[in-house]
Amino acid sequence: MATKQEIEEGLEFIPKFDDNGLIPVIALDAETGQVLMTAYMNRAALDLTIQTGYATYFSRTRRKLWKKGEESGHVQKVLQILVDCDQDCLILRVTVDAGQCHVGYQSCFYRALKKNSSNELEFIAEKVYDPHKTYKK
Amino acid sequence: MATKQEIEEGLEFIPKFDDNGLIPVIALDAETGQVLMTAYMNRAALDLTIQTGYATYFSRTRRKLWKKGEESGHVQKVLQILVDCDQDCLILRVTVDAGQCHVGYQSCFYRALKKNSSNELEFIAEKVYDPHKTYKK
Repeated sequence: MATKQEIEEGLEFIPKFDDNGLIPVIALDAETGQVLMTAYMNRAALDLTIQTGYATYFSRTRRKLWKKGEESGHVQKVLQILVDCDQDCLILRVTVDAGQCHVGYQSCFYRALKKNSSNELEFIAEKVYDPHKTYKK
Repeated sequence: MATKQEIEEGLEFIPKFDDNGLIPVIALDAETGQVLMTAYMNRAALDLTIQTGYATYFSRTRRKLWKKGEESGHVQKVLQILVDCDQDCLILRVTVDAGQCHVGYQSCFYRALKKNSSNELEFIAEKVYDPHKTYKK
């Protein structure tokens, strides 16, 4: 069992998976720095990501490994993997094409809470592709 | 119960808390766009954050609300709250001073996996303050 010092200031990568065997992951556009999406990985997804150089996640709803872009073509080529102080969250710095979110936006974070409101959102981005064409639904 | 359409493309803010009543939150430096840290909020933490304009999280280890900076002074003034497509993750765009991570770095993500390694990290940032002085440990 690693000490707090080893986890926080050591050079060994010892990612902490939660009780469900998952670790949250933030995908960042390496070019713009924009947060594109968040997802989860289990150990197998992380290993595949490291081995192949392309982001593979674990889908909690479908209960299976999921290579980002396997259906849409919008893959994420991984340039760098960052880990936080307590090693329970990862950042992937990725190279991507246009349209990372399945709703049609470049980033999943396309809405913001309106100023002085606690429950009303506003759109802060424009769609960059038509998801109905991409996903053939 | 909101539909997928309402959640993904609607203007109502209906954050989805997990089985433990928590939602993951990414704090971004509004000036630089850098990811500073990730943490969790419960409903009360989110309400306090919206009401006060300063980030309040829920500490999973201490099982209590935690105003970021209450001990260190490194508070986060919230400029904007973003939500993702399925409304189960938030981004806070915050204004901060130097040193957001308790280990002494500006960001908690101060290490990266070494190129062509699956288990060796390297430091990618320098400390910006001495946490032993700040936290008086």
